[in-house]
Amino acid sequence: MRPKSFAAVTALRARRSEGDLQLFDADINADWTIGGRPNGGYLLALLARAALDSTGRTHVLATAATYLRPPDPGPATVSTEVLREGRSATQVRAWVSQEGETCVEAHVTVGRIDPASTPYWSAPAGRAPVCDFEDCFALREGPPGGHRVAIMEQVELRLDPRTLGYMSGNPSGKGEVMGWLTLPFGEAFDSVSLLFAADALPPATFDIEMAGWVPTLTLTVYVRAVPVPGPVQVLQRAQMIQGRLVDESCYVWDAEGSLVAQATQLAGIRLG
Amino acid sequence: MRPKSFAAVTALRARRSEGDLQLFDADINADWTIGGRPNGGYLLALLARAALDSTGRTHVLATAATYLRPPDPGPATVSTEVLREGRSATQVRAWVSQEGETCVEAHVTVGRIDPASTPYWSAPAGRAPVCDFEDCFALREGPPGGHRVAIMEQVELRLDPRTLGYMSGNPSGKGEVMGWLTLPFGEAFDSVSLLFAADALPPATFDIEMAGWVPTLTLTVYVRAVPVPGPVQVLQRAQMIQGRLVDESCYVWDAEGSLVAQATQLAGIRLG
Repeated sequence: MRPKSFAAVTALRARRSEGDLQLFDADINADWTIGGRPNGGYLLALLARAALDSTGRTHVLATAATYLRPPDPGPATVSTEVLREGRSATQVRAWVSQEGETCVEAHVTVGRIDPASTPYWSAPAGRAPVCDFEDCFALREGPPGGHRVAIMEQVELRLDPRTLGYMSGNPSGKGEVMGWLTLPFGEAFDSVSLLFAADALPPATFDIEMAGWVPTLTLTVYVRAVPVPGPVQVLQRAQMIQGRLVDESCYVWDAEGSLVAQATQLAGIRLG
Repeated sequence: MRPKSFAAVTALRARRSEGDLQLFDADINADWTIGGRPNGGYLLALLARAALDSTGRTHVLATAATYLRPPDPGPATVSTEVLREGRSATQVRAWVSQEGETCVEAHVTVGRIDPASTPYWSAPAGRAPVCDFEDCFALREGPPGGHRVAIMEQVELRLDPRTLGYMSGNPSGKGEVMGWLTLPFGEAFDSVSLLFAADALPPATFDIEMAGWVPTLTLTVYVRAVPVPGPVQVLQRAQMIQGRLVDESCYVWDAEGSLVAQATQLAGIRLG
């Protein structure tokens, strides 16, 4: 199937308002899936777009999603309810449902980020550690023997060779996966597609041990700046595997190396 | 006022069920405040306790809260709705309201953590960096000229001397605050009070520049293990100040140095 732009696969059609609720029709794209299940960051982007459309705000500032059950590709309803409208930001609850069952529910804070703003202060460890775009390895498929990763035929993912060992059965053991991410047709990232970037890389646990499906249970993303046009650099880092759960942190830098998003997620894992 | 135990200040009385909703009466304690406003982690603990009471589950696994407006100390209603009951975990929406207005709303995932579980894998940087309990400095008040920090008369907070410079106008500039936290009467921490621990330290930005009130907008906490009895060690680290927002990460270790919780928050700040 011909690739579609990120804007196209996250497009919403406003349906109607029901009291405090605003409803949208969405079409969950079958190509933005892993093993047939929609990518969690892609679903979060749908919710965030609905929050922006409901409020007239410009940018996503923060979002936290809880994943209840994976929706199927195809038609879905996205609903929003404004929880509080403040001076500089609006807080929204948004959820995607199919056949009356909620699949993902999120809180989304929307406002405006000054594109010209620069950090007042940032932690010393904040520089992008990813190697140059040209020196990264374009990944076209998932690890040997795994699910079909349809989404890899949509976006371009170029992994840093230092975190590619898992593809040949030699993970580094550091629990890090990093690389460059490009949207279809080189579409510029914005505060909505950055949410996808924060969940677009292979699980950082692949760099420890292969363990099949690593489903996201909850994902929190803070958008900290407006990225310059171009691909983004992403680092996904595992912190601890315990009790069949892993928590990962994620950093996204734009093409010029400015930190533009930070994220954490808790995922299920069949290890330990 | 005589200190009360953490269990007492987070006690709930089940009121009734209304359809899918369960309602509880809470009493937001006036002593668990900063400048008269309830601590965000304390409020999150109230929501998590309601989620456990509603489901019969044993431990909090993860929670993400969005702060809409600070409630006043005094009577409040905590409501819960089960979003999905799974085999090993239940996902709940919980919110605290006063006079019909929602003040804080959270998603809470509850389940069971095996107290005997140990990490299958953890990141190399995972060891507690806090100095010994005896070498930390017991803090009895907020910084000079700031709000009354009533909560400091309830809990014992002993800060690592390396992160105490802000009290004398000499922040280190690293954006880190760390120390030991003890609940009233030395009550053992559990998965509910760990949520409080993840928001109990002074803002890490005090170690950069004093900026008055740093209100939490959204707070995500993952409970990763059951702590041993005793105080906990906490590190709060600022990552970036930009656009009048700061994101901080937080790590909580138990008295033996095992990592028991990780958290992130986005807060407002009057810098930049």
